[in-house]
Amino acid sequence: MSLGIGIIGAGIMGADHARTVARHLPGAHLAAISDLDAARANKAAMESGARKVLGDPFAVVADPSVDAVIVASPDATHAALVLACLQAGKPVLCEKPLAATVEECLAIVAAEAKLGKTLVQVGFMRRFDPAYVEMKATLDGGTLGAAVLLHCVHRNVSPAYAFEPFMAIANSAVHEIDIARWLLGSDYVRAIVTRSRKARPADPILLTLETASGALVSIEVFINAGYGYDVRGELVCEQGTVTLAPGLGNAIRHARTDSFGFAADWRPRFAEAYRLELQSWVRGIGGGQYEGASAWDGYVATEVAIACVRALDTGAPVEIQLAERPA
Amino acid sequence: MSLGIGIIGAGIMGADHARTVARHLPGAHLAAISDLDAARANKAAMESGARKVLGDPFAVVADPSVDAVIVASPDATHAALVLACLQAGKPVLCEKPLAATVEECLAIVAAEAKLGKTLVQVGFMRRFDPAYVEMKATLDGGTLGAAVLLHCVHRNVSPAYAFEPFMAIANSAVHEIDIARWLLGSDYVRAIVTRSRKARPADPILLTLETASGALVSIEVFINAGYGYDVRGELVCEQGTVTLAPGLGNAIRHARTDSFGFAADWRPRFAEAYRLELQSWVRGIGGGQYEGASAWDGYVATEVAIACVRALDTGAPVEIQLAERPA
Amino acid sequence: MSLGIGIIGAGIMGADHARTVARHLPGAHLAAISDLDAARANKAAMESGARKVLGDPFAVVADPSVDAVIVASPDATHAALVLACLQAGKPVLCEKPLAATVEECLAIVAAEAKLGKTLVQVGFMRRFDPAYVEMKATLDGGTLGAAVLLHCVHRNVSPAYAFEPFMAIANSAVHEIDIARWLLGSDYVRAIVTRSRKARPADPILLTLETASGALVSIEVFINAGYGYDVRGELVCEQGTVTLAPGLGNAIRHARTDSFGFAADWRPRFAEAYRLELQSWVRGIGGGQYEGASAWDGYVATEVAIACVRALDTGAPVEIQLAERPA
Amino acid sequence: MSLGIGIIGAGIMGADHARTVARHLPGAHLAAISDLDAARANKAAMESGARKVLGDPFAVVADPSVDAVIVASPDATHAALVLACLQAGKPVLCEKPLAATVEECLAIVAAEAKLGKTLVQVGFMRRFDPAYVEMKATLDGGTLGAAVLLHCVHRNVSPAYAFEPFMAIANSAVHEIDIARWLLGSDYVRAIVTRSRKARPADPILLTLETASGALVSIEVFINAGYGYDVRGELVCEQGTVTLAPGLGNAIRHARTDSFGFAADWRPRFAEAYRLELQSWVRGIGGGQYEGASAWDGYVATEVAIACVRALDTGAPVEIQLAERPA
Repeated sequence: MSLGIGIIGAGIMGADHARTVARHLPGAHLAAISDLDAARANKAAMESGARKVLGDPFAVVADPSVDAVIVASPDATHAALVLACLQAGKPVLCEKPLAATVEECLAIVAAEAKLGKTLVQVGFMRRFDPAYVEMKATLDGGTLGAAVLLHCVHRNVSPAYAFEPFMAIANSAVHEIDIARWLLGSDYVRAIVTRSRKARPADPILLTLETASGALVSIEVFINAGYGYDVRGELVCEQGTVTLAPGLGNAIRHARTDSFGFAADWRPRFAEAYRLELQSWVRGIGGGQYEGASAWDGYVATEVAIACVRALDTGAPVEIQLAERPA
Repeated sequence: MSLGIGIIGAGIMGADHARTVARHLPGAHLAAISDLDAARANKAAMESGARKVLGDPFAVVADPSVDAVIVASPDATHAALVLACLQAGKPVLCEKPLAATVEECLAIVAAEAKLGKTLVQVGFMRRFDPAYVEMKATLDGGTLGAAVLLHCVHRNVSPAYAFEPFMAIANSAVHEIDIARWLLGSDYVRAIVTRSRKARPADPILLTLETASGALVSIEVFINAGYGYDVRGELVCEQGTVTLAPGLGNAIRHARTDSFGFAADWRPRFAEAYRLELQSWVRGIGGGQYEGASAWDGYVATEVAIACVRALDTGAPVEIQLAERPA
Repeated sequence: MSLGIGIIGAGIMGADHARTVARHLPGAHLAAISDLDAARANKAAMESGARKVLGDPFAVVADPSVDAVIVASPDATHAALVLACLQAGKPVLCEKPLAATVEECLAIVAAEAKLGKTLVQVGFMRRFDPAYVEMKATLDGGTLGAAVLLHCVHRNVSPAYAFEPFMAIANSAVHEIDIARWLLGSDYVRAIVTRSRKARPADPILLTLETASGALVSIEVFINAGYGYDVRGELVCEQGTVTLAPGLGNAIRHARTDSFGFAADWRPRFAEAYRLELQSWVRGIGGGQYEGASAWDGYVATEVAIACVRALDTGAPVEIQLAERPA
Repeated sequence: MSLGIGIIGAGIMGADHARTVARHLPGAHLAAISDLDAARANKAAMESGARKVLGDPFAVVADPSVDAVIVASPDATHAALVLACLQAGKPVLCEKPLAATVEECLAIVAAEAKLGKTLVQVGFMRRFDPAYVEMKATLDGGTLGAAVLLHCVHRNVSPAYAFEPFMAIANSAVHEIDIARWLLGSDYVRAIVTRSRKARPADPILLTLETASGALVSIEVFINAGYGYDVRGELVCEQGTVTLAPGLGNAIRHARTDSFGFAADWRPRFAEAYRLELQSWVRGIGGGQYEGASAWDGYVATEVAIACVRALDTGAPVEIQLAERPA
């Protein structure tokens, strides 16, 4: 009766998910894992007790011991793998982005709508982060009035690869694009994106989004902040504000300073969110009801990110128009 | 191959442990639960999928589907149940205190020593709290020099029952007594305990303990602090200090204040510690090596707590002498 | 030998300055004060020991017992009074704005240049606030690298009068416009100003300014934030950041919260800045060298604020062009 | 009409007071300064514009241009100088301690009582620190209920001289002894003082004082904390707590840490308190009513400090008995 999970991709995220399945997921086990790099797949399988190592990602989808699939392979492969899962009738948790193009996203949305059954969840794990969840509960509780402004700061220590400005939006700001829409419960209608005309390669990029409800979302992204991984958020409502718990560790007083440490990347900050995301997903598979981001949410994130890249390139405000959502 | 866990006691802690087994413990399941109050046992069993509800706690120990036991029944029953587990050769995680008297504690220590095999872990969950673990790592790392002083604050909102001063030590300060000894890696040699001669029923009690290594441990306990559950710690070393992460949630700015919330009891603060404790315990059962507090640690906590009660009653410093530890 | 100060305007700022002269300014005394509202002038004079109460503001400038003038009257009167001080050869500290129009500002700059002697200081008191001074010292110290982004938050509790969006810029954001330019040591070249198209009367307004050096300045202004007066700033440099000391008071733990209080307006936050500003000004009069904002700085602030109002009105980026500075 | 102030002692505190008189004290001027070290006296005089430099401290008291005296000379000289001021009928602000022995303190109290006029203020500057003042206002406001416990931490970076444990009490903890008594409005009845029997020369010393009202005061003193000057306080009342504003400066995020700086000594932390103390004293001289610590308060501080030293030496609780206060 234990759920057999197959993981496609044994890179940072795939290996992390494999460990989470092994350590924190009663009622599930790691049935199979695949990676183009066989050594990497074998290492992750050893660490997490995967029962099978496969070379072909589509073999994971097809394997009868696999009841549900986690897609953590390179972005360009997401759409085909998710579509294969839909075809196989297997639940799939796809790391963001759902797909790199609007067309692919909409193809997935349409395929799932045709099935008449929810099978896709997109890995926007922040929706499970306790601080964001508490922020939403405070907003929905109503004592602070309506939301008028959400400030987001997203600073990465250093780029993982040769970096172009659009990647700061597509890979980093896309998390804020999704979480702000989820928090505020309203779609975006306009984007203004700025960066210094004299700036070094990419940093910082400032996005200002406006929602249909009339709230503003301000997002600052750094790819190369250097000092540490730093994610912050402040929601300003008519009567007051909510600021995300800083989530810092112990304080050290030493050598004339009182200091907290920063991590080098996002994993410690969102470890609990990833764990809760997978636990929720497994419960969702059992009950047929998912709490995470849907295929439609994945489409919207990609559509808005692309609009923001256009706003950056043109230097002018861009009006955002979404596709029609299938019933 | 899944480990069958039996839980004795379905009160606050027992029910919490049952939920943790169900939600966070791959490789284990809840085989049986018992409580003198059958309704309470049934409710906890429903919530957490226990396979069996038993009336007699010793039947849990004896049940062949139970591979390991969690004792979360009233303090006075701990010793007999732990001894029964030892006799049955089953691993047991006993909520603190291991036993209320030194004699009972030593009987358990002796019985386990005779078996020649570790089976007992005492539920001092703070040893698994990430903030304490990080504090110990900082101390052991050495950059701050030797420990000279540990400040501990332990404030409960209100007493759960008719309250006497010795219970503030035996039920509350005992957590600090254990965690400080674990952090500092040295046994206590002296206790001074003070409270105001004019004070209301119990609060506050100030304990000052001295370790064999020459460090001081200052512990403040409130049973009735009213405003919220508040646990803090600061370790002062020769070259600097470490302060436990405050672990607060989101900040709310509203009505001329910037505020963080406190919980009403200890569970949110230590939820992660309980989860990590059980996960470590299950790993320990598999490997025969436990990271948690041993029966000896349970004895020492009780011995020191009793010395502190004597110091409170007499108003004079009390020298602390431990029993001889069996090989 | 004590310096005779005349204050024009006995409103909130004028009365505050009068008290500061009386309590904190050795080497100076309050020679005269004037206000159109005689009762208000008399009250401020009583409180602060002013030697003379006058009705006509120009009489303050002309009075032989007045060696130096503080202009704290309504904005529309600033230019004429400052010009009168220049004509009388008397040092003048003019509350911001120096003047409401670019033409008036430039007339003052030209008149002072013709005199060949510095007599004007503009009351941008934040330049004396210890937190901003420390921030500038850190930036200039160089360990964090060049400045790339300055975030500013400026939230007022409620408007003092019927409110229009341009006033959020001209009266509030103008403080950030001056202090950011002073901190970064570079003039602005472009402004983008946004607010929600569905927003209530004015809040919030988001300004993004770009400097000639390539840094971005992000300013958020609320006129009606409700919860408390809240000013924050974070300077992001290539290697790290500096955040303004929060300047909060004691923490209160009560009723399940840990809270700090906010003031209802700007005076407690900047009381020390006002005191240090006046002390510096009096020293400057003695030595002929001023540390505060010059007439030129006052002109730039007005020019940039007007550009920002235009950017708000048009919704498009506005390029900023300054006048030629007289030698 | 300006008040002529004479300062005896041009060491750290004397020179600081001289600068405060020159910069922050309208209505007063520095009439004379003296020091055994003539070079030091001349330097302080130059910096602060003292009109006269004298060699003999008693000449300062006697000088007709001196209306009021600040005693900042070595502790052993305080009593004789304060008595000389009383004899001359001149107001005197004496740095703590009022005198090193109980007998000298009581002689001063008696001499002043005989005069029938308050002339003595003792330099316990913390009574003017805004954070302590706000803490007292919160307590007196009553919303938190009665005070039950005050925690004080007082950490110095390194000793200024060959150091003995009693000096940690007489020179450092004496500040907490005074401020806690002032805050709580109740005299001490008992002292328990502990330090590790294995400890290095002096640190830390833990004092637990009990007041007549039944509150406890816990004081921790470090002479050699190394990392920075750190003073903290938390008042615990029946319904909640007040924690002193940390008073930290800007935050720096750099190299994987978020840090605040500590000063190397007490002067930045208490600069405002010293300024407000002198301003209050000058107002007090004008009105004959002082807000600061009286000669009696100075006596009590010395009496209690001596009792604490005895408690440290004997290792046993010491009951505290004050002299009879003259009418």
